[in-house]
This record gives sequence, structure tokens and C-alpha cells, in this order.
Amino acid sequence: MIQITLPDGSIKEITKGSTPMDVAMSISEGLARNVISASFNDTTVETTTELTTDGSLILYTWNNDEGKKAFWHSTSHVMAQAIEEKFPNAKLTLGPAIDNGFYYDVDFGDDKFTDADFKAIEDRVLEISREKHEFKMRSVSKAEALSIYKDNEYKTELISNLEDGTITFCDHSNFFDLCRGGHIPHTGIIKAFKILSIAGAYWRGNENNKQLTRVYGISFPKQKDLTDYLHLLEEAKKRDHRKLGKELDLFHFSQRVGQGLPLWLPKGAALRDRLEQFLKKAQKKAGYEQVVTPHIGQKELYVTSGHYAKYGADSFQPINTPAEGEEFLLKPMNCPHHCEIYNARPWSYKDLPKRYAEFGTVYRYEQSGELHGLTRVRGFTQDDAHIFCTPDQLDEEFKKVIDLVLYVFGSLGFENFTAQISLRDQENREKYIGSDENWEKAENAIINAAKDKNLNTVVEYGEAAFYGPKLDFMVKDALGRSWQLGTIQVDYNLPERFDLTYKGSDNELHRPVMIHRAPFGSMERFIAILLEHTAGNFPLWLMPEQAIILSLSEKYENYAKKVLELLENHEIRTLVDNRNETIGKKIRDAEGQKYPFMLIIGEEEEKNGTVSVRRHGQDGKGNITVSIDEFASLVNEEVKKTLKTFEV
Amino acid sequence: MIQITLPDGSIKEITKGSTPMDVAMSISEGLARNVISASFNDTTVETTTELTTDGSLILYTWNNDEGKKAFWHSTSHVMAQAIEEKFPNAKLTLGPAIDNGFYYDVDFGDDKFTDADFKAIEDRVLEISREKHEFKMRSVSKAEALSIYKDNEYKTELISNLEDGTITFCDHSNFFDLCRGGHIPHTGIIKAFKILSIAGAYWRGNENNKQLTRVYGISFPKQKDLTDYLHLLEEAKKRDHRKLGKELDLFHFSQRVGQGLPLWLPKGAALRDRLEQFLKKAQKKAGYEQVVTPHIGQKELYVTSGHYAKYGADSFQPINTPAEGEEFLLKPMNCPHHCEIYNARPWSYKDLPKRYAEFGTVYRYEQSGELHGLTRVRGFTQDDAHIFCTPDQLDEEFKKVIDLVLYVFGSLGFENFTAQISLRDQENREKYIGSDENWEKAENAIINAAKDKNLNTVVEYGEAAFYGPKLDFMVKDALGRSWQLGTIQVDYNLPERFDLTYKGSDNELHRPVMIHRAPFGSMERFIAILLEHTAGNFPLWLMPEQAIILSLSEKYENYAKKVLELLENHEIRTLVDNRNETIGKKIRDAEGQKYPFMLIIGEEEEKNGTVSVRRHGQDGKGNITVSIDEFASLVNEEVKKTLKTFEV
Repeated sequence: MIQITLPDGSIKEITKGSTPMDVAMSISEGLARNVISASFNDTTVETTTELTTDGSLILYTWNNDEGKKAFWHSTSHVMAQAIEEKFPNAKLTLGPAIDNGFYYDVDFGDDKFTDADFKAIEDRVLEISREKHEFKMRSVSKAEALSIYKDNEYKTELISNLEDGTITFCDHSNFFDLCRGGHIPHTGIIKAFKILSIAGAYWRGNENNKQLTRVYGISFPKQKDLTDYLHLLEEAKKRDHRKLGKELDLFHFSQRVGQGLPLWLPKGAALRDRLEQFLKKAQKKAGYEQVVTPHIGQKELYVTSGHYAKYGADSFQPINTPAEGEEFLLKPMNCPHHCEIYNARPWSYKDLPKRYAEFGTVYRYEQSGELHGLTRVRGFTQDDAHIFCTPDQLDEEFKKVIDLVLYVFGSLGFENFTAQISLRDQENREKYIGSDENWEKAENAIINAAKDKNLNTVVEYGEAAFYGPKLDFMVKDALGRSWQLGTIQVDYNLPERFDLTYKGSDNELHRPVMIHRAPFGSMERFIAILLEHTAGNFPLWLMPEQAIILSLSEKYENYAKKVLELLENHEIRTLVDNRNETIGKKIRDAEGQKYPFMLIIGEEEEKNGTVSVRRHGQDGKGNITVSIDEFASLVNEEVKKTLKTFEV
Repeated sequence: MIQITLPDGSIKEITKGSTPMDVAMSISEGLARNVISASFNDTTVETTTELTTDGSLILYTWNNDEGKKAFWHSTSHVMAQAIEEKFPNAKLTLGPAIDNGFYYDVDFGDDKFTDADFKAIEDRVLEISREKHEFKMRSVSKAEALSIYKDNEYKTELISNLEDGTITFCDHSNFFDLCRGGHIPHTGIIKAFKILSIAGAYWRGNENNKQLTRVYGISFPKQKDLTDYLHLLEEAKKRDHRKLGKELDLFHFSQRVGQGLPLWLPKGAALRDRLEQFLKKAQKKAGYEQVVTPHIGQKELYVTSGHYAKYGADSFQPINTPAEGEEFLLKPMNCPHHCEIYNARPWSYKDLPKRYAEFGTVYRYEQSGELHGLTRVRGFTQDDAHIFCTPDQLDEEFKKVIDLVLYVFGSLGFENFTAQISLRDQENREKYIGSDENWEKAENAIINAAKDKNLNTVVEYGEAAFYGPKLDFMVKDALGRSWQLGTIQVDYNLPERFDLTYKGSDNELHRPVMIHRAPFGSMERFIAILLEHTAGNFPLWLMPEQAIILSLSEKYENYAKKVLELLENHEIRTLVDNRNETIGKKIRDAEGQKYPFMLIIGEEEEKNGTVSVRRHGQDGKGNITVSIDEFASLVNEEVKKTLKTFEV
């Protein structure tokens, strides 16, 4: 008998030589049905691998990332088989699972693999799958492996780099492949499969090597999962913020200015400004004070803060001055500057908390390959604030910050989120800076605040930073994708490093605690997520333009002007389309620009002093004709529904 | 006879050997009385120098900078004489005129020169002056000069570096000094003199040399001028923006962040923001669109714009990236970024003008010795905008910009200004980029716009930049000091360099013209000047806090809260001083903080629902007791008086 430890700490005694699937079966038949892969002592194993020593076993289902990985990796074997059958001259190379599906890099030789071949391969993969072939690993000597693959220079290269005795193949059906393992029990559970795309890829990523064809695929245990995924993919493509940003004239990247450095066009800058003013207003009510600090600081500043030691080498390099030997850095964070503002004068406990807020633009170097639209940039503006308070005020301050974040999410239509609380590793308390007493205080402050505000929480032990615990908001967007937005973080470290103090009621100097917080996170990333979440249909209060007046002909130009003026008096952001175009064309363009309201005016409307209101995305259903004042009330009512006043 | 050309181009025939003073006399006796120095063929001469060749002569009076320089330089001789009489062991070194007065660096040896000696020296200088000694230059051989100064190592060093035959001394009374010349006719016109201060100064500015005593002095042709100057100095000291900025908690410099990089404290940041919102609002009305661009750009961007060639070596050095060999620069200007925004899409003549505005923070390296509070910094925010228009639109756009600048000045209490128009050097038209026709257009646009707006103008030929003519507003502050504020500049160069185009009505591509403009110039410098102009008593609409409630005792805390709430509803920025202090102390502190209104409340006020209003700086004169609503009306009326709505 051997002892198998399961993730919940329980121990199972099983016969030596039992498999992970046997263990699953011994727990429940239901589990056994769902188990598709396993790891033993932190190493991926097959569900059919015989266990011969004591150890820790984790069983994975489709719901685990590891399970999906095995599922997709296994499907790549089946796809390779189908390709090999149809293209006998094709040489297989490598076919790993990736975040969403898998790929296989194939050298098709003189053959061409095109979109036209997808269907046949897909059908054949499903056919093979239905035959329920088991995946079985076997050891092969290096000599034998090299001989088997003597016509495939890619596999030969891979095998040459392996040690004899460690080489394994995986068999299923009449197909085999060089493979390290990690498969689902059999092909039968692959119920849906699709080739997503093909692309060129150099062997081993080196452009001096031959270009192969990378075939991307994805598979699922249910047909519906595939349908949903393809729909999501389609939706995500339509909502891609880079595409929408261009269509809606929000931002622009210039190669001459530099990669990852967005230029905000007028409409985008107005959107940003509206978001900033919205948060500033709420923050003012919540007792924050705005400050302004430079975008550079002496290297010494970041040596003091510790950022230089941590990020210096991988970041934008120091800026030298011509004569005086000074060294400056682009600021990667606003906190050191805010610490220096705190240090500009002495404080008493009666003055605290001080809450310094700044829409501070910071610069962090990212490799060009990592850049992606507005979600990964090299310069971005944080809606940053730092709260300097006494340890006793933490509880109250944390609650206030949560209120503010909830207000922000509510006003912007993010309804689906959880709060991830990161605490100390209780076993390794010495890893953390700050007294045990203060950590207790801070952790309890976070837990209590989250409870008090009825947040849906996940607690992660050991995930706190060395300088303090934190709470991150994980938000689900309209496509069900998860984003980290909004972070609240306690910090005992910077107050030490910057020697921040306040005079307590005991007349002694004490260290304040710092809270870092940013409800949006970064303006750039937030706007990108908001674009994808709303598909560009921002909440009405935030829309760069709320209405567009479409005149039936040039005859109504004067009436258009009058309507515009009246709506401007009502502070409704309105445009006029006076072009000499058909109303059909004007409507199509306005729909494309996602203006929430189209106000069509002609003879009837001018006569009656009305507008004919068409809502975006309704195909003209529910059009109504109302007076200007009625329309203004309608807009203001709708604005009020999402944009409530922040109450402290 | 020789021919003397005067600045107005007229030519005088005079006897060879006549002096500048003779020429002055031949023009008018009044002029001769006022002439105090002269230059001949661009070289400083004495008023008594005999002229022996044809040439150009300029005569200077006290009203010219050159005249003042001669006056102060001459006084430094007299001061040196007085010092030498009183301190026979003192060794004189150098004593030049500076912007305001002059100094003399003296090695007092074992003697000490202190404040206590000032009076005696001042009296003796005036005594010598009254004796009307003439200043007379004489040539001295190098050998003789060295022998005369054999006990003065400083003069010896100076003489050693001179060529024999070029060495001159200046005599007056029984005093002589090594001197290149440039004196007033005699000491008699020095009617007022004061030693301003003393400081340590290394010989020749090298800290390895001996430290000398630098004696700063100033002198005037009238006693009243000195009184006025000392008053101004006193006022300027009181109004020094660095001092006020600290007292009013507006901004702070941290050595750790870096020299010349201001941190804006909450009150200062609010002030800045109010100024920005004020201008943004007017700009929106005037058809500007706000954009946002990063604070760095690829070096290539500034190579394209030409800024790198011009400033690169003397500026903040390029920022390298760790892996990819990219080079970025801190942006010294916003214009290249705005050009790239213009280039983000094609334009038609119907779309123009495009007016892109940004409160863009730029970074320019200044040597640490040049830095001064907020007026000379290394990072500052420009209220920048660039107008891209057709050449035909220049006229109209220029007028609109002037309207905006006048609105800004009017709202901020700058009433005394002139417009300096800088045009081409008509003789050297080839020095300038852009067609003759476009230059004509642009110059006429500026001249006409200035005329149309009734500006008080000065035209300077040859002062235009090579890329276009400009208009600068020169503003006089409350102390009569002149500041350059607000610039409007035409640019034909960047549109070429960035290949900017628009499609004309002829369906061909054309170059737009660019206008750079900034009414404030930089937020930092503008706020500094505004601080010194108003001594911190900003226009009411701009004050960080407009009123402070001072309760007679803690008993009235609730009433204070009520008043605060009511005033907040009226959008009057109000504070409460609830400290347990006497009302006298509270008033003194509030006066120090320059709050425009102090609202004193006690039993009487609470009973009647009133406030007792004391205005800043009135010593309690004119105090009135009014209802809250009446006070609110009073404030709003006063705000409206300076802050008018901008009308397009």
C-alpha cells in the first residue's frame, strides 16, 4: 500500500500500482467521469500512470486550467494525425496547448495547407475522437527514436537534445508522436473541435530557420462550449478597443512618437476628462486633496523608495544632464512624490488622514512585443491617491475607499465583481515588514471592511506584498472575461523609507500607515476595458456626444441650429449633421458612431418645434416625436439613473 | 573735419578731436546735460574721448541701459576709493556694473568689513561725489602697471593677462584703478548711493581661490530714485513668490525629487486647476479641442521637428531602453506631438482650422544656478495650443487669439501691457523659410489684428524667428516690472518638416500654417508673476479659499457648520477656524493667509442668522453685518466684476 495525499490534506491508502483514475473512482464515480488529467508530486502524469510511491496527487477536470491544457494538448495529437493522413509528406514539429486552445507547427513541404482544408481536418478529428482511442505513453530509446524520425529533421533536432532514457512517445489509434505526456484518458471526450486560423512561424522562433505553418485549433467537451466560444471570439473582435478607438476617433498611435505611447484625440481626451472630473468630484466629497507632481525625479528618490533596486535595470534608463552629473528617472509610480509632499511640513494626529490624489502619468518600459493597444502601454495615467493615516484609522479609511470604488463601478455599469483579499503567509511572518500588531490591524481592517460592505470575497493567504495586505477588485465584463480593476493596498514600507512621521496625542513621533488606491487603475486600461465591455456604448453621461441632429434636407439648417442651441442650454452634448446626404446615409453613419440619440428633423418637426428621436441600435423601433424640452428631460432622467451623486 | 553718423541716420560734420560731449552740445544743451556715456563704432568710449575718424556715435542718458551701466560702473570707482581710504590694507580686485547696480570684490586681509561700516562708506562716497571729480582715462605701460600693483596679486594677475599697449587706468580725485573705460563725465551727478549687501565670493569664481568680500551697491542721479528703488526692493521681497508660495502652502521643492521640479501642494494645485478650467472653458467656446499626449517621444520625433539639432546637446539626455535600442527624449515642446495628431487622418479645407489645445508638461534642462522658484524651472506646464489653418484664415485666427489673450489678462488684473510684433529683417529675406507671399500675409495678419484690437504695439524688424513672425505681450506688474506673458507665433516650418497637408477646394494638397499660442505661457511662471503682481491677493474668483468663518468661541461651532453648509451651497469656497484661540489670533492668522473675507460669528450673529464681514487688509474698517444670502450675493457680484464670460 502507498499513501496518497489529496489537496484538502486528506490521505488515501491505495494499492501500489493504482492509477490517478483509480483514486478518482475510489472517491466517487462522478469525479472519475470528470477527471481528465492529474499531477503527482507537482509533475504532470497521465490518468493511467501507475503510482508506486507515497506522494501528493491533484486530479484535474475541465474546470481547471491544467485540465484544459491536457484536453487541448491531446486534441493537438488528434489533429496531427488527421493532418498526417491527408498530407503524408507533412513533417510534424511541435504542438503545445496555449491559453485558448493549441497549435501545431507543421512543415507541409511542397503541399499547401489552406482554409479550404479546414473542414476535412475538422471532420476527421471528430471522427477519430468518436472512436474513443486511449492515449498511452511508452518509452523509446534514443537510437530508436532517431531512426523512426530519420526523415524529420525537426523531431531529430528535438530528440538529439534529449537524454537517452527520458524519451517517450504517445500512442493513440494508429498514430504516435514524440511527447512528454499529460493527456486526457481517451479521445472520446473531445466533442467539438475547430481550426481557428493558420499563420507562418519560424522553426524555434528563429527567422533564419525555415518558415512552418502554425495551425491554431481549439476543442471542447461540449458542442455548445464551442458555439459560445466562437460567438465570444466574434463579439470580442467587434469590441476590440483598438478597432473601436479608431472608428470612434478616440486615440491614435504614431510610430514617430513611439510604440505604446497613445495620443488622445479630441473625443478620447474629452472622454478621459469626463471620467477624471467624475472621480475628482466624488473624491473631493470624500476628503481627498488633488496635488500635482513632476513626471521625473532624481534617481536618488527611487533608490530611497526601493523602486530603483527592484525595477531599475529593466526600466527606462536614467536621464543624464549635460553638465552637472545629475541622474533623473521617468517616474514609474507617484508614491515617492506624494511621500515628499507629506514630508513638506510636520503633522499632528489631528491633521490625519491626509488624502493626496493625482491623475499622475507614469512611465514603465514594456518590451515592444508585450504592447497591446491601451491595455499594455509604456505611459499611462493612474487615478492615484495615497492616504496617510494612523493605524487606528485604517478600518474607517478602508471602508471609505470601498464605498468610492463601488460608486465608480456602479456609475460605469460594472455589476459583476469579486474582491480578492491578499493576506500574509501565516507560516512565514518574518518575510513581512511592519509589526505583527499592525499587520493584524490591517488584515482585520480589510476583512471587516469587505464584510461590512457585503463584498463577494476570495481570501488568498501568502499573496500579500511584503509591505502590506491588499484588496483587488476582479471585474467580469459583458463577455464574461475577468479583469483586475481597482486596487487598495496597505503599505508599511514607504513610511519607513521616507521617514514619515506625525505627532501623536502622546506628543511622540509615530509612523503613519499609507494606503495606495486606484479605482480605475489606469485611465488607458480602464477606457480600453470599458470600450470592450460596452462595445463603445458608454453610459449616457459619459458619451463624448449624446445626440446628433440629422436634418432631412438643407432646408432645415436653421431649425437644426435652433435645436442645437436649446440642447446646449440643457447641457446635452449635441452635434449636427448638415451634410448634403440622404437621411439613410446620415442614420447609418450616426449608428456607426454610436451616438445614443439621433434627432431627425424635417418639415413636420420644424412646424411643431419637435424632434423625431431614434435610439442607437434599435433599428428605428420605438422612435418617438417629442418637444425639445421633453427630449432634454428624457436624457437627464436617463443620466440620473446611472450617474448618482456620491454620498459620503 | 570728420563725419559722425547718429542713430537716426543723420550725419554731423565736426572738427577732428571733438568729444561725444561736444557732439551732444552741438545738438542741444539739454541733451548735453543728460548725456552720461557713449559708444563709438560699437565700442564704449568716454564722453571726453577725442573722436579722430568718421564713425557711428550713440549718446546714452540715464534712460538707457548703457547709461545706467556707466553710472554704476563709475560709482564703483568712488566706492573703491572710499573703501581704500578707510581700509588701507584692502586689496581691490574687480568692480563691474550688473543689472541692478554694481559690486566690487575686495580682499580685506585681516580687516573685517561689516554692516556697521556701510554708513561711513556711503557718506564718504556722497562727499567725494559732491566734489565733482572728472573721470579721466590714461594709458600705462605693462611694466609700470605691474610695478604700481606689485602688492596686489589680483591686479597683477589681471595685468599679466593683458597686452602691453592696451592697459589703461582711470583717474578721479586722487584715486586710480585699472580700468577699460566707460564712465560718466564726473562724480557730481551721483546724488544717491547705498550699499545693498555683502557676500562671500571666490576670486574668479573658483572655489580653490581665496574668498573675497563682494560689496553690492547701487546709485542714482536723484535721491527719490533711490528711495523708490529701496521701496520696490522691499515690496518685491515681501511679494517674492517663493516666500508667498511657502506661506500660503502653494508649492514645495524637495531636494530628493530634484531642483527646479515643483511639487504642487493641495492649495496650489487647486489654484492651478482653477486657472486651467477657466482657460479651458473660454477655449471651448473659441472652438479649441483638448488633446492629451505623452511626456516623452522618440528621439526621431525631435530630429524631424529640428528641436534635437537645436537643443539636444544642452538638454536632458536621451532615455535608453534596456533591450531594444530605442531612444526617447523628455518632450521640450508639445508641437511635434500635435503635428502627429493632425497627421492621424487626412483633412479637407472644410475641416480647418483645427485647434488642438493641451496643458502639456514639458521638461527643459536649466543649469542649477539658473533656477529660480517657479520662474525658472526644469519642468513646467504650458497652456499650449496649435492652430492648423489655411493661409487665408490667418487674419481671422490671429484676431481670435488676441481676443482670448485680452480676456485672460482682463480676468486676472493685468491692465498695463504692450504688444511686441517681431517681423522679418526686410534686407535679408532669404534667411526665412516660407514663401514671400505667405510672409506678407502673415505679417499683415499680425499687424492688422493688433491694429484692429487697438493694441499698444512696438514693431521690431529682424526679430521674427526664421520660421515665422510673432506677437509677444509684455506686461507690467504692480511694481512696474516688465514680464513677457502670452505669445502668438506663426510657423511655416513644422508643417514642412511633418509634411502636414489638407485638400484644398482645388482638390490639390496644400500646406496648412501653424499658429503656436499660449496666453499664460507656463502655469508655473504665470502663477509666480501673478503672486508677485497681486502679493497673493488673487482675484476673488481664483482664490483657493474665498472666506473663513471665525467663531468667537466653541459655543458657536454648530452655527459655524450651518454657515459653512449654506455658503457651500452658494459655491463659495469657505473654511472654518474652530480652534480654541482668541478672535484676535484667529484674525491675525486669517490676514496672514490672505483670505479675502473673514466671517466673524458670535451670539448676536447666531441669533439673527447673520455674519460679521471683515475684509482682508482693511484693518477692520468697513466691517458690515449681513445675512448669509446677502454675503453670498456680495461675493458673487464681486466675482462677476472681474470674471466675465468669454464672448466669441
